Amino acid sequence: MNNEIVNVSLQILPIGEEEISLERIDRVLEYIGSTGVKYLVGPMETTMEGPYHQLMDIVAKAQDICFKEGAGRVVSVIKVDAKKTGVTMDEKIKKYR
Amino acid sequence: MNNEIVNVSLQILPIGEEEISLERIDRVLEYIGSTGVKYLVGPMETTMEGPYHQLMDIVAKAQDICFKEGAGRVVSVIKVDAKKTGVTMDEKIKKYR
Amino acid sequence: MNNEIVNVSLQILPIGEEEISLERIDRVLEYIGSTGVKYLVGPMETTMEGPYHQLMDIVAKAQDICFKEGAGRVVSVIKVDAKKTGVTMDEKIKKYR
Amino acid sequence: MNNEIVNVSLQILPIGEEEISLERIDRVLEYIGSTGVKYLVGPMETTMEGPYHQLMDIVAKAQDICFKEGAGRVVSVIKVDAKKTGVTMDEKIKKYR
Repeated sequence: MNNEIVNVSLQILPIGEEEISLERIDRVLEYIGSTGVKYLVGPMETTMEGPYHQLMDIVAKAQDICFKEGAGRVVSVIKVDAKKTGVTMDEKIKKYR
Repeated sequence: MNNEIVNVSLQILPIGEEEISLERIDRVLEYIGSTGVKYLVGPMETTMEGPYHQLMDIVAKAQDICFKEGAGRVVSVIKVDAKKTGVTMDEKIKKYR
Repeated sequence: MNNEIVNVSLQILPIGEEEISLERIDRVLEYIGSTGVKYLVGPMETTMEGPYHQLMDIVAKAQDICFKEGAGRVVSVIKVDAKKTGVTMDEKIKKYR
Repeated sequence: MNNEIVNVSLQILPIGEEEISLERIDRVLEYIGSTGVKYLVGPMETTMEGPYHQLMDIVAKAQDICFKEGAGRVVSVIKVDAKKTGVTMDEKIKKYR
C-alpha cells in the first residue's frame, strides 16, 4: 500500500471480565491519542486517518497493550477504506455533522 | 431480544460504480435521519441507539432502499452492542469528545 | 427485504471469562444447528443461507441465548450479502474447496 | 505482536461493477493461495493462520492487487483472533466439521 491517506477503524475486544476489558480499551484509546494521528472515537469503533502502514502499526501496538495489561486473548475488527487518490474522514462525515 | 437500549452500527456497501454507491448511501442516511432514532454518522459506519428490533427494522429497510435505488447487490456489516441493563452511545464516547 | 436467498454471517462475542464465553458460543452453534438452515462454521464467524428475515430472527435468538446463559453483555458482528436474484454460499466458495 | 499463531480473516471489497470486483477478488484469492499460509475460503471472508505480521503483510498486498487490477477504492473488513499462547483454526471449527 502506498502513502496516500486512508481511514482505518479499530474495534478491539480484550476477552475477559467486562470492567477489566473496558479499562484495557481506555489504555488503548490513551495510546491512540498519544500517537498524534487524527482520530475519532465512535460508539463501536475508533477511526484513524493517515498512511496505511502507520495506522496498521498503531493497530498492532493496540493489541500488544491489551496483552501487556493482562489479556489472554484479544479479538479485533479492523476496517480499511483506501482510495488511489486518498480519502479523509471529513469528506465522508462533514455534511452529517 | 428485549426492549433495552442497544447500539447497532451499519456499514452499507451497495455494490457498483463508486459515485452511484455514494448517492445510495446518502439516501440511506437521509432515511435513518427520518426515523427519529438517535444516530451518529461515523467515517466507516453509522451507529444508532434504541430497542434492538426497531434498529434492525431500520437496517432491513436501509438495504431495501439500496435495491430500490437500483443496486443489484448489497453487502452490509452490522455490529451490535447489547447489555442486559441497556447501553447508550454517550456512556462509551462522552469522555473522548 | 424480500424472500430471496441471502448469506448472513454471525460472529458472537459474549463478554466475560474466555472459557465461559466459549461454552456460550457452543450453545449458540447448537441452536443454529437445530434451526435446519444451511450453515457453515468458520474460524471467525458462522455463515447461514436462507431468507433474510428468517436468518435475522436466528441472529436475535442467538444473542438471547447468551443472555439466558448468564452473559451481561454481548457484542456481535453480522455481515449480510444480499443479491436481487439471490446468492448461495456454494457459488462463492465451491471453486475454492 | 509476537510470533504466536493467530487467525486473521479478510473480506475485501474492491468498489466497482460487480463482475469486475469478483474477478479482482479471485486474483486476491489466487495470491493468498500462493503464499503458502494455511487458509480457508468462507462465504463472507477468507481466514488465514500464521504469525500476525506475516498475515497482515498478506492483507496489505491483497489490497495492492485490487489497485493494480484497476480498482480506485478498496474497502476491507479484517478480523484478528490472537491468544497469548497461540490459536489455530482447527481448535475452533474441528468439532463442527
